[in-house]
Amino acid sequence: MTTHPAPRRPKKILLVSAHPEPRSLNASLSAFAAGHLRAAGHEVSVSDLYAMKWKAVVDADDFPGRDPARRLNVLDDSQRATLDGTLSPDVAAEQEKVRRADAVILQFPLWWFSVPAILKGWIDRVFTAGFAYGPAVPPPYGDGPLAGRRALLSVTYGARESAFSERGIHGRLADVLHPVQHGLFWFTGMTPLDPFAVHGSLDVPPERYARITEAYARRLDGLFTDAPVPFRSLTGGDYDHAMRLVPGTEPPGTTGLDLHTHPRT
Amino acid sequence: MTTHPAPRRPKKILLVSAHPEPRSLNASLSAFAAGHLRAAGHEVSVSDLYAMKWKAVVDADDFPGRDPARRLNVLDDSQRATLDGTLSPDVAAEQEKVRRADAVILQFPLWWFSVPAILKGWIDRVFTAGFAYGPAVPPPYGDGPLAGRRALLSVTYGARESAFSERGIHGRLADVLHPVQHGLFWFTGMTPLDPFAVHGSLDVPPERYARITEAYARRLDGLFTDAPVPFRSLTGGDYDHAMRLVPGTEPPGTTGLDLHTHPRT
Repeated sequence: MTTHPAPRRPKKILLVSAHPEPRSLNASLSAFAAGHLRAAGHEVSVSDLYAMKWKAVVDADDFPGRDPARRLNVLDDSQRATLDGTLSPDVAAEQEKVRRADAVILQFPLWWFSVPAILKGWIDRVFTAGFAYGPAVPPPYGDGPLAGRRALLSVTYGARESAFSERGIHGRLADVLHPVQHGLFWFTGMTPLDPFAVHGSLDVPPERYARITEAYARRLDGLFTDAPVPFRSLTGGDYDHAMRLVPGTEPPGTTGLDLHTHPRT
Repeated sequence: MTTHPAPRRPKKILLVSAHPEPRSLNASLSAFAAGHLRAAGHEVSVSDLYAMKWKAVVDADDFPGRDPARRLNVLDDSQRATLDGTLSPDVAAEQEKVRRADAVILQFPLWWFSVPAILKGWIDRVFTAGFAYGPAVPPPYGDGPLAGRRALLSVTYGARESAFSERGIHGRLADVLHPVQHGLFWFTGMTPLDPFAVHGSLDVPPERYARITEAYARRLDGLFTDAPVPFRSLTGGDYDHAMRLVPGTEPPGTTGLDLHTHPRT
C-alpha cells in the first residue's frame, strides 16, 4: 500500500458492505477501501451487513414505541419514532453513522440488477421519514436532509462490460442504478459520484485484481474532489410545481433518464 | 364483484405480496386480485411474504448440501443445489410455484424506488442459477428458462403521478422499474406487461379505491391477452456478440433505456 501525507482535513467515511462470503471480491474491495482511506488519514466506519446479521425487513418491530393496536403505517410510524428517538437501536445506530459521515460508500455485488436484499433492507430501514425525507426535513432533490455528504457505489457484476455500455442489452449501468443514485442519494440531498464498477467479477486473477485496486484507489483519492453526477435540482428551478422538467430546459432530443442530468461538459 | 363465465382455459397464477400490514392498501389489492382471478375460474396461489416470514437474505444456509469449508460462491453453489435438488425447502417450494405458474404478479409498495427488501430477497433467493439463468438453461432475453409466463407488477407509491411521468423528476415509472421488468422478467424469458400503478397511495378514500379496483380488474382480465412490453430479444438478432444493440436497429434519436424496446405502434 502506498503511504499518503495526512490530508489537511481528515474526513469521516461510512463504508457499507453487503456480501455473505468474507473471502469474496466484495470483502476484499471493502478491506482495501478501508485501508486506503485510513492510510490517507481519514476515519472509516464499516457496516459489514452480513457480519452484523443485519435485519433486512421493515416491520412493526422497528418502531417499538408505537401503539400495536393501530394499523402499521410505515411513513407515519417511522417518522414518529425518528422524531421521538424511539427507533429500534440498530436503525438508530446506522442513522448516527450516516449523520456523522462526510461520505458514504456502498460495496455490493449487483444481484438482479440491484442491491442485494440485505442492503435494500439497510436502505429501507435506515432512511426513515423524519431522517431522510418527509415533511419534517428539508425538501428532496437538492438541499435535502443529508446534504453535504458524498456518495459512491462500488459494485461488482459478472457480465461483460459491454452488456452495461451505452447500447448494452442490460441498459447503461447509470440507468440500472438510477433508483439508488437519484432515488436514494440525490433525493435525500447527498452528492452521488459515478459508480466504481468491476465487470467480469466471476474470474479476477491476481494481476487483474491489482489493476482494479489501482483504479479504485484513484476513485477513493477523488472521493471529495471528483466532479459528481450533475443531476438537476428541484430547488434549482428546473422542475415545475408538478415535479416535471420545465419544457425547453434540456438540449433538443434528450429523453428518458437523461432529462434529469445537466449535460456533461 | 362481477361474475364471470369460467374461462375456456383456466390458468395458474402466482401472486406474491410484500407488505407488513394486513390492513394495508397492498393487502387489499392482493385480496382483490386473488378474488377476481378465482371468480374468473383461474387457480391462484398466494405467497404473502410477511405472513410467511420469508427469509430475505441469501446466505450459505440456502445451499445445505454444500461443503462448508469451501468459499461460498453464490452462482456456483446455487446452481449446484438447484440441479441436485438440494436447495433450502422454502426456496424450492417457491420455484415450484413459479414453474407451475402461467403468470406471476408481484404486489408491493415502491420503497426507495424499488421493491421492499423482503421481495428483493424473494427474487435473490428464488431465481437461482440453474433455474432462472446460467449455462445450464436456455439463454436470456428471449426464449429464457421461464418463457411462456406473463408477469405483472402491481405497485403503489405515495408520490403524485406526474413525478413519475414522461418528464417527472423521479424518472418514468418504466425506467425506475427496468431492473425488475427487463432485468428479472424479460431476462429470464417471462413476458412483462406494463405495470399497474396506484399513485398517491397515502390517502385512498373508498370512492377512489372503487375506481382503482375497477381499473385493476380490467388489467387482470387482460393478463393473458394485453400486449406486453415490446422488449427486444437477444435471440432475435437485435444485439451483437458483445450484447450491444446493432447500430441502426433503433429509430433515429432513440437513447437510453428506450433502445431496448421496439417502438410501440
